[in-house]
Amino acid sequence: MNHQLLDEAAQKLIRQAGERIKDSLHKQMTVTEKTSSSDLVTNIDIETEQFFVDQVSKQFPEHRLLGEEGSGDVITSFDGYVWIVDPIDGTTNFINQQRNFCITVGIYKDGIGELGYIYQVMTGEMISAIRGQGAFQNGVKLHPLTPVAFEDSLIGVNASWVAPNRHIDHERVARLIKRVRGTRSYGSAALEISYVVTGRLDAYFSMRLSAWDVAGGMVIANEVGALSGTLGGAPFDLLKKQPFVIANPALFEELIKDYLVK
Amino acid sequence: MNHQLLDEAAQKLIRQAGERIKDSLHKQMTVTEKTSSSDLVTNIDIETEQFFVDQVSKQFPEHRLLGEEGSGDVITSFDGYVWIVDPIDGTTNFINQQRNFCITVGIYKDGIGELGYIYQVMTGEMISAIRGQGAFQNGVKLHPLTPVAFEDSLIGVNASWVAPNRHIDHERVARLIKRVRGTRSYGSAALEISYVVTGRLDAYFSMRLSAWDVAGGMVIANEVGALSGTLGGAPFDLLKKQPFVIANPALFEELIKDYLVK
Repeated sequence: MNHQLLDEAAQKLIRQAGERIKDSLHKQMTVTEKTSSSDLVTNIDIETEQFFVDQVSKQFPEHRLLGEEGSGDVITSFDGYVWIVDPIDGTTNFINQQRNFCITVGIYKDGIGELGYIYQVMTGEMISAIRGQGAFQNGVKLHPLTPVAFEDSLIGVNASWVAPNRHIDHERVARLIKRVRGTRSYGSAALEISYVVTGRLDAYFSMRLSAWDVAGGMVIANEVGALSGTLGGAPFDLLKKQPFVIANPALFEELIKDYLVK
Repeated sequence: MNHQLLDEAAQKLIRQAGERIKDSLHKQMTVTEKTSSSDLVTNIDIETEQFFVDQVSKQFPEHRLLGEEGSGDVITSFDGYVWIVDPIDGTTNFINQQRNFCITVGIYKDGIGELGYIYQVMTGEMISAIRGQGAFQNGVKLHPLTPVAFEDSLIGVNASWVAPNRHIDHERVARLIKRVRGTRSYGSAALEISYVVTGRLDAYFSMRLSAWDVAGGMVIANEVGALSGTLGGAPFDLLKKQPFVIANPALFEELIKDYLVK
């Protein structure tokens, strides 16, 4: 399969899905709680995922699709082509802000990330990558990340990881945020990953992410030299919900060793 | 003085200043530390403030100007017209991200906020208000804020207030963030205030803000029904660096009483 043509088809689908989401902003939406009051889904998330399922099965009948909302295939292995899709990453932002949410897609072949996309719907910013051919911001090639000092860095970290929690030693995180220039939190993993690969943030971590949150971003990360993995630095397992960290290569090892792993 | 005409002149000046800042993004900038490694100023902050000083003194010679970078007047009282200007609110974002920073201006007459502006330079979003005449987003009137429940709210809070610090009881803040739907942090007080007055956030607070951070925003807040003040709810003193909170009116009292004041 020609990945240049696959890239064109994927970008077209993602932009079409984005237009559908924008059109839906003027209509009544239904909001449903999934696992908790802060884990929400709307009818637009579900309809957008169904759009990807329909279109991918029509255009690429041999490809499978793993989606956040579960309307794709049941995936237990990554043989062949698998589209990993989050139709709306940052659903709370979508509901409360009508902005700051993304469509993100990774296309993997035999478990290897071949194409990656983070599309910020309301600004129209498309970050994309094809493995081995670089990453792009609306078609303009992104530079590899340049080294940054810890003291000059901006880190994406949600306030909840600095409060006592079951997932990470909050006292270490508190020490980290005192050392860096500043912290930010945007409420969409894909958006924050797009900030790291463009150098607007120098690192981002979160405790409970799934394949659809990071699959596209990891393909882009490889092309600009950002490092990513679980908190210990091991590769992120696409079949598990687990911690995830992505960082400028100058920060990655020290960030993990001194602040993220007990 | 006709405030409609003053509004037109102010908006024109702010947009001109924004164009100058955008032009400067392609040039080398100099970054200097002020009070700490996270309190930075660039030559662009200083040149932009000087542009306001020059233009206001030329167009409105009887007006005074209080600016963050100190090139305006020494203000010890607010008699007559005073422009309160932050030429770049979110200087760290300006340096690290080249986005997510604002020009914010409040025009006060005898201590009363008459006109307010928050201009997000890179998106071109201008939030403005004239006292008694409503608030506007790029000229379109903003609706008054609608009530929101604590459990559905998004709060702007920097992670540093959840870590042990000298300014606020971090354990109370940790309890707050467990109760709300989510927290965000954008690194520019004016940007976060613009999010509260448009309902994209339901509250925002920070511990050490000055007149230039909030003067424009407070005028806008009044027009949409957002409540603001110091942590105890008293009016913000424009001559002091102090804590600041702004919130949806349905949250303000409980937020202060249960979470912000010891």
